[in-house]
Amino acid sequence: MDFDAIYNEYRDKVECRLKEIIEIKEPKLIYEPFSYFMEEGGKRIRPVLTMFAAEAVSGKPIDALDSGCAIEILHNFTLVHDDIMDKSDMRRGKLTVHKKWDEPVAIITGDAMIGIAYSILPQHERYYEISQAFSRGLVEVCEGQVWDMQFNERKDVTLEEYLLMIDKKTAKLLETCTVVGGHYGLATPDEILALKNYANYLGLAFQIQDDMLDMIADEKKLGKKVGLDIQEGKKTFLIIKANSLAKEAGDKQLLDLYFVSNGLGGDYVEKFREMFSRLGVFEIAQNEVDRLFSEAKSSLSAIRDNRGKALLEGLVDKLNNRAF
Amino acid sequence: MDFDAIYNEYRDKVECRLKEIIEIKEPKLIYEPFSYFMEEGGKRIRPVLTMFAAEAVSGKPIDALDSGCAIEILHNFTLVHDDIMDKSDMRRGKLTVHKKWDEPVAIITGDAMIGIAYSILPQHERYYEISQAFSRGLVEVCEGQVWDMQFNERKDVTLEEYLLMIDKKTAKLLETCTVVGGHYGLATPDEILALKNYANYLGLAFQIQDDMLDMIADEKKLGKKVGLDIQEGKKTFLIIKANSLAKEAGDKQLLDLYFVSNGLGGDYVEKFREMFSRLGVFEIAQNEVDRLFSEAKSSLSAIRDNRGKALLEGLVDKLNNRAF
Repeated sequence: MDFDAIYNEYRDKVECRLKEIIEIKEPKLIYEPFSYFMEEGGKRIRPVLTMFAAEAVSGKPIDALDSGCAIEILHNFTLVHDDIMDKSDMRRGKLTVHKKWDEPVAIITGDAMIGIAYSILPQHERYYEISQAFSRGLVEVCEGQVWDMQFNERKDVTLEEYLLMIDKKTAKLLETCTVVGGHYGLATPDEILALKNYANYLGLAFQIQDDMLDMIADEKKLGKKVGLDIQEGKKTFLIIKANSLAKEAGDKQLLDLYFVSNGLGGDYVEKFREMFSRLGVFEIAQNEVDRLFSEAKSSLSAIRDNRGKALLEGLVDKLNNRAF
Repeated sequence: MDFDAIYNEYRDKVECRLKEIIEIKEPKLIYEPFSYFMEEGGKRIRPVLTMFAAEAVSGKPIDALDSGCAIEILHNFTLVHDDIMDKSDMRRGKLTVHKKWDEPVAIITGDAMIGIAYSILPQHERYYEISQAFSRGLVEVCEGQVWDMQFNERKDVTLEEYLLMIDKKTAKLLETCTVVGGHYGLATPDEILALKNYANYLGLAFQIQDDMLDMIADEKKLGKKVGLDIQEGKKTFLIIKANSLAKEAGDKQLLDLYFVSNGLGGDYVEKFREMFSRLGVFEIAQNEVDRLFSEAKSSLSAIRDNRGKALLEGLVDKLNNRAF
């Protein structure tokens, strides 16, 4: 099985369908920013995952295409609003919506995107369950964003709280993908549970990996500077773990300064890298990522072997080996 | 039939149900502002209308209670976000969410309210149609808000454009009420169409009436100062109509000054009142309101006489006679 070829084939289908869905109409101040933000959206991992999930339970992946697009639109709405809240000027090398237009336009475009996303979920005998999963995803991703904002103002974030936050902010919408995809493929309750757990582990692993890549990735491959989390004062897996392990006065001072200043300049990134390395934090994080990816695969045991399941497993391997 | 008694009985049911739905849980930065904003929400016309519609097609009004609450939450989300966009500090005599908390909290609370609203729409054999009507309402109210914002920057708004704006910003969500209520009451397609038209006329009449009351209401009954639209530079039915009728140089100058300055101080309110009166604008507006309310009632002819239909007719009379 050529994973990359199949992934790209599905992603192309998503890209085409999104182009059909997103038409520029009046009022342009909603549909132009919507179209602008959805353009060339990178990996499209959420809709492809939705299609893989449908295929894994012996459904037709194409039956989950529109719902995958709906989740992709929902995901992009969260980014449009997050960019306002985080005061981010750029995303994916382009101006954010509230910078290119203004805040009211970014607020209302995001709002409309939610309605558009719901409206393209296709009719189905399980439509109620699907809509409920979709709403749960929406509410939880909002809750996750609030946790994340609150962490900015706290220095005592525990690992448990961090995991709760990434569960809501990242993992829950991936669960929405596999659960919704599973329903369009008429999954059994056991299969739905397996798909849900798979996506949860996948999401948690992905986020911790993201924290690591921010410190150790090759900048060229990552497509952005490394160490940005340090400069933004993020409470990452690495920072929280280091804070619980640091014993030396120098380390404690550095971490205190970090929390008090809400992040430190680029000059400090190397200092943190050295500390994380010395305290074994990178190793702990990598072990956790490996464990979570492995749990993701094990979660699929309730699902019969088929190409869809192999694709879900292939996605784990692909992400596990990513360098960006 | 004692309209007021029945209205209040239904409104009390809505109030109780909303209290059950809105629980304060973590993260408090979503659920506290949500609860705060939903408190003592005035007339609760949307959920009561939803219940009336169900009853008018011989359904049980209680079957439409939760969906009415969902629409009320959706309506309140639009107000939370509108207040940010309009930079309003106060609403219903209380601080707006973005003033009491901050903008990020108001954005994310509104977002979460959309998901909560969808999630409480009860399962039903017509769930897909109901959810679609709900999404249409959401998207159209966003479109209406954008039209309204764009009008702020234009002096050449036509009456046709104004009607399109209030159709989307006010009437469409009332249509959502009657269509959703109708579906929970298992309305026939003809009944759905009748309910939809009824709500559309009702919404348009209500909004034009609002424009008039802002100029001629008793401040004590209105609960706020009159003439606020003039001070905010709103393109109301009255302003647009006056602009198309004004011939005298003095009137034209006043209107030009209004458009250039985007509104004029409280001292000018009396001047506008005099001009509207002299040009017959109040009379034209009142005739239009009467016509629309009458059309609302006529729209119900496809529905058999029963208490629910009488309540819908009673609501027209109630609104037609309102002084605030």
